[in-house]
Amino acid sequence: TVSQVPELTKKDGVTFTPFGRLQVDAGIVNGPDEINDPGLGFAHEIRRVRIGFKGDIPGGFGYKMEVDFASGDLDLYDAYMEYAAGDATFKLGQHNNFQGLEELTSSRFTSFMERAAFTDAFGFERKVGLSAEYAKADWMVQGGVFSDNLENLQLDENNSWSADARTVYAPKIGEAQLHIGGSVHYREFNDASDVTRYRQRPELHVTDTRFMDTGNFSATSELGYGLEAAAVLGRFHFEGETFWQHVGRPAALADPTFFGGSAEMGLFLTSGDKRSYKGFKFDRVKPAHPLDQGGFGALQVNLRYDYLDLNDADIRGGIQNAYAASLVWTPTDFTRLMLEYSRMEYDDMPILAGTQDDYGVDSIGMRAQVDF
Amino acid sequence: TVSQVPELTKKDGVTFTPFGRLQVDAGIVNGPDEINDPGLGFAHEIRRVRIGFKGDIPGGFGYKMEVDFASGDLDLYDAYMEYAAGDATFKLGQHNNFQGLEELTSSRFTSFMERAAFTDAFGFERKVGLSAEYAKADWMVQGGVFSDNLENLQLDENNSWSADARTVYAPKIGEAQLHIGGSVHYREFNDASDVTRYRQRPELHVTDTRFMDTGNFSATSELGYGLEAAAVLGRFHFEGETFWQHVGRPAALADPTFFGGSAEMGLFLTSGDKRSYKGFKFDRVKPAHPLDQGGFGALQVNLRYDYLDLNDADIRGGIQNAYAASLVWTPTDFTRLMLEYSRMEYDDMPILAGTQDDYGVDSIGMRAQVDF
Amino acid sequence: TVSQVPELTKKDGVTFTPFGRLQVDAGIVNGPDEINDPGLGFAHEIRRVRIGFKGDIPGGFGYKMEVDFASGDLDLYDAYMEYAAGDATFKLGQHNNFQGLEELTSSRFTSFMERAAFTDAFGFERKVGLSAEYAKADWMVQGGVFSDNLENLQLDENNSWSADARTVYAPKIGEAQLHIGGSVHYREFNDASDVTRYRQRPELHVTDTRFMDTGNFSATSELGYGLEAAAVLGRFHFEGETFWQHVGRPAALADPTFFGGSAEMGLFLTSGDKRSYKGFKFDRVKPAHPLDQGGFGALQVNLRYDYLDLNDADIRGGIQNAYAASLVWTPTDFTRLMLEYSRMEYDDMPILAGTQDDYGVDSIGMRAQVDF
Repeated sequence: TVSQVPELTKKDGVTFTPFGRLQVDAGIVNGPDEINDPGLGFAHEIRRVRIGFKGDIPGGFGYKMEVDFASGDLDLYDAYMEYAAGDATFKLGQHNNFQGLEELTSSRFTSFMERAAFTDAFGFERKVGLSAEYAKADWMVQGGVFSDNLENLQLDENNSWSADARTVYAPKIGEAQLHIGGSVHYREFNDASDVTRYRQRPELHVTDTRFMDTGNFSATSELGYGLEAAAVLGRFHFEGETFWQHVGRPAALADPTFFGGSAEMGLFLTSGDKRSYKGFKFDRVKPAHPLDQGGFGALQVNLRYDYLDLNDADIRGGIQNAYAASLVWTPTDFTRLMLEYSRMEYDDMPILAGTQDDYGVDSIGMRAQVDF
Repeated sequence: TVSQVPELTKKDGVTFTPFGRLQVDAGIVNGPDEINDPGLGFAHEIRRVRIGFKGDIPGGFGYKMEVDFASGDLDLYDAYMEYAAGDATFKLGQHNNFQGLEELTSSRFTSFMERAAFTDAFGFERKVGLSAEYAKADWMVQGGVFSDNLENLQLDENNSWSADARTVYAPKIGEAQLHIGGSVHYREFNDASDVTRYRQRPELHVTDTRFMDTGNFSATSELGYGLEAAAVLGRFHFEGETFWQHVGRPAALADPTFFGGSAEMGLFLTSGDKRSYKGFKFDRVKPAHPLDQGGFGALQVNLRYDYLDLNDADIRGGIQNAYAASLVWTPTDFTRLMLEYSRMEYDDMPILAGTQDDYGVDSIGMRAQVDF
Repeated sequence: TVSQVPELTKKDGVTFTPFGRLQVDAGIVNGPDEINDPGLGFAHEIRRVRIGFKGDIPGGFGYKMEVDFASGDLDLYDAYMEYAAGDATFKLGQHNNFQGLEELTSSRFTSFMERAAFTDAFGFERKVGLSAEYAKADWMVQGGVFSDNLENLQLDENNSWSADARTVYAPKIGEAQLHIGGSVHYREFNDASDVTRYRQRPELHVTDTRFMDTGNFSATSELGYGLEAAAVLGRFHFEGETFWQHVGRPAALADPTFFGGSAEMGLFLTSGDKRSYKGFKFDRVKPAHPLDQGGFGALQVNLRYDYLDLNDADIRGGIQNAYAASLVWTPTDFTRLMLEYSRMEYDDMPILAGTQDDYGVDSIGMRAQVDF
């Protein structure tokens, strides 16, 4: 006989809740004929295979750990402890440093297979640090100090640090859920011989080819600003973000400012379905008429414009204007199928197609997903 | 107070069942005196230390993940999602591509410490792909298309693919459980500069020495045929398999066909015990009189003939005639001890013993196992 | 509805209990100005992020697996099966080889962030092997044979082995819990070209700099002797250990004997609190007045003297006299904060500070910990 237990409650009240996800991708990336790259064309991969464990510890404490095996090796994502006191929550360990709405929304719930181009391009990733969040009703502010990702911290000569802050106002006005926010990020590389690099794949992760790529260049600091807005009204949603990355360079070198931004909107074709919003993030879509109850599940179409400019000062990483459409079928609460097409218009690119520095790339992607 | 819960049932009906295994091996491999290899002699290792998680997702879906740490690092085995509709089951992600009865039988339940020589020699391993299985009563057919193992897929230039199909007929005739089946496998390496290699250890995994070894040679495709038969009648079981591996080579090079086959039979010395067969595979032996209920557990003796021929065309990988005997003690449902002796007669070998290309090798192995 | 289940009991009585820990450290190591090492100064890290699984298997068997991700990769700690028969317990797989009281006490429960210097310096780590323990009332003896750590065993040419034995007498005299013990360890490196190396960090793990370091030197065997004593009386505890490491070297080379020892004592400032002792090891402190029940938790101060001499024969690894004080706050059963200061006096060191081979180093460390 099976009991209904959503979590294991150990002796003395400590709980243990496992969770995980599995995403299998396939895709085609079609570049200009002049670029001969065997990494283009058809490819497929396990995009994410993750297991995690989280729980409560009496006294207001908690923990969360999550690892991914999709690289054929182990990558550690979240690894933090938590303390909640009233409306404030404190986190210590590896966690996200408040980069923006889409980055903080789980990859299980995004509208496209990959997040907007600037999120990877500007190196958003979890870092080890200490943060605090204060949330009251429809307003939230969060901030923290971080060092670096656990992988990079293995080198004990790594003395980089960052300070990050973000605020969100998310009122419910009538039937509409609104979300506006902004964030600011400062990072010191803090080492004698620092370089950085910004680059991005062509909207799909199945290829490792990056047309957009600044290459390594010397840098000492980053100052980033993000703005974000979103709205959910019934079947419709909108989400828009912008991010400026200002890079401090040594001595006489000119400091570039790179920019990325995206805007998406989506519509559920199935009645009663809507994009769920919880805890200042997008959350799980639960179909009104799921497949296992005789329904069709939820079907959603999305459009996105995704801009990224990695050209400034004497750095040339390319300019992207990408247009994408996706179809997302959510048969049940824990399953999802995605199909998407993207058209990237590239200008002033560092990789030439023959003698041309502007050209177009197309991609088609598919994803199957389960989570638990 | 402890409830009896075989699995965690999370909110909304998703279940979570952990499982694992631990196998600790020791062995001696004794080669000819003329071969001076410090990897021979006594050795021991943790053969497998695995943890996995599987569960059901409402609507007929499921998931399974399993990882192994025995290499001192992480290796991903199963990582797939599943959908069952009536008598059909679909799998997407990394899973086995229907290689044959012994390969598909869990390593917890095989009659010898290692499977027949051809299974490793011909590179059987899980691959990422999509498959379907249709099973009705005592007949089953399964097929799928696969790319490559997750590790190999890390290189996005990897465009290899395979198509695999298998069928099994497993009638129960009187008291006898029969099993006959066949499979066919086609793989394109699909890269400009492809090589492959077939090799195998001397019946034990504790050594990394492979006497049987074709070395790398250029190849473009593989076409494999497998035949399999098995029977369980009371205390007695028989299992036999053969596999032909035809290798396509570029241009004017001759295409070799390699061959492996094995036949084993076993007998339980303890009354009431039998080899269990379930889902077209061998399954867990549950002793009729387990140690924890005052019995002795189940004791089984097995004999095996294990042939492998890696010599064809201009490729010389050696010929193996191996004779093995094992004693398997299963004290309780979840514990197992194995002791085995193997004699390998090697002919036309690539590694010489002095000036001789034929010689014999002996090995003695032991394994202790628990699983859950 | 949540049931209170401390473990998952699978079908047929096999149990599954997950457990884990998370420790986040920060620290400053201040060396002499003449040593310019970017690994000194401020650093922080996730010291341990671990998940493990253990359980019982009917018939007196059990299993335990534990992995750590803090290195950014996977490291396997415990991986063993167990069999209990009356007062005897047998373990097979990777486990600790009875090095001494502090090494065997969980890192969750030590009085300082790092164990005494000799424990890492002499290479204490889990190894694959077979051991037996016999415990009766307040007396225990344990012994085993081991090969090497799983990582090192990947090389099948590794033929090293060790034999280890230890005994402890732990009577309760009135209110006082006493502990005295001794252990002996013999290891053959058993390879043609063996080298070893003994080294240690300056009391904190956040830096990878080791002032104490013999460098590699040729060696064929190790013979180690350990003595250990401890006492708990109400709020007060004492723990002292010594370890002699005698190293056999090839042929005419002189055999050095290195020595390490430490003595610590601690006092709880909060009434009703004491260091817990169970199973011949220190165990979890459970505050008499935990934070989540309106109390302050348990507050403990500790002092330690930590000596290590890596200079003998013609080997010069340095001499350490370290003095440390720690403040340990245990708000609740499963949370812990540590603050400590150490002063290391180094003599006859292999790393010079300018022209000086003796100098002092200071460190300040902090740790936040949760476990489950």
